[in-house]
Amino acid sequence: MSEDSAKIAVIGLGNAGLPLAAIVADSGIKVMGVDINEERCRMINQGENPIPEEVGLEELIKLHGGKRLVATPRFEDASGCKTFIVIVPVFVDAGNNPDFSIMQKALHSLGKILKKGDLVVLETTFPPGTTEGMAASRLCEASGLLPSDFFLAYSPERIMTGYSLSRLREFPKVIGGRDDESGIVAYQVYKNFISNLHLVSSARVAEMIKVMEGCYRDVNIALANELFKICQDLGVDFFEAREKANHQFCHIHLPSTGVGGHCIPVYPWFLIKEMDKRENFSNCRLLRTSREVNDEMIRYWAGRILSECMKIKKPLFSIKICIKGITFRAGVKEFYHSRNLALARLLMEKGLDAYVSDPLLSEHDVQKWGLRHIDPLTADLLFDPFLLKFEYPQKTKD
Amino acid sequence: MSEDSAKIAVIGLGNAGLPLAAIVADSGIKVMGVDINEERCRMINQGENPIPEEVGLEELIKLHGGKRLVATPRFEDASGCKTFIVIVPVFVDAGNNPDFSIMQKALHSLGKILKKGDLVVLETTFPPGTTEGMAASRLCEASGLLPSDFFLAYSPERIMTGYSLSRLREFPKVIGGRDDESGIVAYQVYKNFISNLHLVSSARVAEMIKVMEGCYRDVNIALANELFKICQDLGVDFFEAREKANHQFCHIHLPSTGVGGHCIPVYPWFLIKEMDKRENFSNCRLLRTSREVNDEMIRYWAGRILSECMKIKKPLFSIKICIKGITFRAGVKEFYHSRNLALARLLMEKGLDAYVSDPLLSEHDVQKWGLRHIDPLTADLLFDPFLLKFEYPQKTKD
Repeated sequence: MSEDSAKIAVIGLGNAGLPLAAIVADSGIKVMGVDINEERCRMINQGENPIPEEVGLEELIKLHGGKRLVATPRFEDASGCKTFIVIVPVFVDAGNNPDFSIMQKALHSLGKILKKGDLVVLETTFPPGTTEGMAASRLCEASGLLPSDFFLAYSPERIMTGYSLSRLREFPKVIGGRDDESGIVAYQVYKNFISNLHLVSSARVAEMIKVMEGCYRDVNIALANELFKICQDLGVDFFEAREKANHQFCHIHLPSTGVGGHCIPVYPWFLIKEMDKRENFSNCRLLRTSREVNDEMIRYWAGRILSECMKIKKPLFSIKICIKGITFRAGVKEFYHSRNLALARLLMEKGLDAYVSDPLLSEHDVQKWGLRHIDPLTADLLFDPFLLKFEYPQKTKD
Repeated sequence: MSEDSAKIAVIGLGNAGLPLAAIVADSGIKVMGVDINEERCRMINQGENPIPEEVGLEELIKLHGGKRLVATPRFEDASGCKTFIVIVPVFVDAGNNPDFSIMQKALHSLGKILKKGDLVVLETTFPPGTTEGMAASRLCEASGLLPSDFFLAYSPERIMTGYSLSRLREFPKVIGGRDDESGIVAYQVYKNFISNLHLVSSARVAEMIKVMEGCYRDVNIALANELFKICQDLGVDFFEAREKANHQFCHIHLPSTGVGGHCIPVYPWFLIKEMDKRENFSNCRLLRTSREVNDEMIRYWAGRILSECMKIKKPLFSIKICIKGITFRAGVKEFYHSRNLALARLLMEKGLDAYVSDPLLSEHDVQKWGLRHIDPLTADLLFDPFLLKFEYPQKTKD
């Protein structure tokens, strides 16, 4: 291995992996990025940024792409690296159990090039115990190495799409080893590119930290949704009450149509399913209830939409209803567990004359989801699922 | 009414009322305090502070007691006042329904001396709608006045025992009227002694603000308790994980034996029971689950205590177990809905050799609660319900 070759490999150049790879490169370290998406690799190597919404990433990819940061679809190209950071997705399946298939494939391929003395750091959020359990076994199996032959640690990504670079540069980041030595080795490597880094006592603790944060968010969004519904019933303006209720000891969140995306609606299941396996069902009553409250918000909003329809001077089934956005979050073209998409589908399934208008989507994009596009100005009732506001563009309201 | 007579009456000189009365007096306004407790009135008038744990109150009572702040058990003595602040307790009964009996009695007596143009401000926490509903009716009934004859507003106390004066001086306080004019009149009066004051659109919104804060606390304590139990099962140190999980957007609370006192375990019921009345049961699933999770924590801790007993070299029923504190909070001699008291009782009911040692209580005090006092050093197992820690003073542990 020449002085010139890459020292750190980042496996997975998605929304979480690429910003991290760019930060590592920007710290002066040569990075080999591995991703199965060949087109993405080509773009990066030409200095083109594949995630335009990520503030500051364009400059870094332009500066380092194809130079200090090289992307490749082949694991063999990273065989000279000493540190491997794995940041590929883990989803939940239809039964809400973690789906490790992509992660297991990546660990298998990584095992094939893993050498004695190498360091592996996992960044993907998954159930506590996964690093020292499943991940360690897979790496040993594929590499033929003993657990003590390589260092293994966990450091959860804490990014937020759009703000990943500032998060990596400023936000506290934790790292914990499968064993004490792994923790120290991983901490020393990460310290080169993460300034606000905190070593915790184990990989398991680091895994729990990330999942706990997600649970805090999910439960508090469920609480906001519940208080919002109660305020509506009591004739109280939730937003006015929330503004004045919140202070340094009170952090009531914002209500919504539920919680979507790859993170918050997924993480509570990691704990719920783990407790189910141990038959400690009662340990997760609040987490489970919060998931249900959030997922059922689309029924609440469907009910509110029907109430609004009663104010419109047309028969129910000829009222043109438009949902203004079906992505899971405003401004992000992602649909995973999108409750807004689910709401639009629920209205269609009920036989209502429901349409979609989404500034991020073409008419064709909308049709791909089995929905119908409409010019929002021609709708009788417009529901904005991000602002939770109703409008009546056709002035057919009483 | 002479220039010299009191201008503001404070009805109820309890832990919330007396600090407020002292703050009003300290702003230069003459205050008539009304409380049924004659001994308390006597003390105050002699400049003696009946709430020693309240920081700074002693100086104020010494300075103003019997002078600018006069206490009386008779409502008639306050008949010359123009503003009446009502701050008497509302509890919940055995079925968790609000028990307004003390409040209704106070409002009836107040009604008898209420005059045209007077201002009444309620400070007690109760269900949204109570000021404009029950309170307004009671005052009209007893006074013979029309609703429009007097001003009526609501401004929830936001104190915390021990820190009430600094809370009143610095913390944001909200106020809202039954109608717009009442809101403005009440705001102008309160502005004379509360500097961080915020007028909100109605009494109902102000009522909801206070209840929402309590719900946030109860739900987040339930979440902390649930995450604590999960961490225990997964072999993760909850306190380490919590410290690193918390940041500007994450506020995981501390675990406990549950939630006691007059406030947090009571306020969620105000909303739950109100929604029950409207048959909107599903609107309060999370609030209800949180109450249950918190109340059931004593069963969890009883189980943990039994697990610890298994490590002690003695038959189960001859192991001396000592609960180190039965008040609902450390350092506050209050027992309302105390989960620590409930835990000690649960252990006794199960036939275990359970005792109590509480630095705030004499042997006699402990016996009054049907429990047995012990010198903690003679116990085999000591459980501190505030620190959630076990000790083995008799060294009988394996």
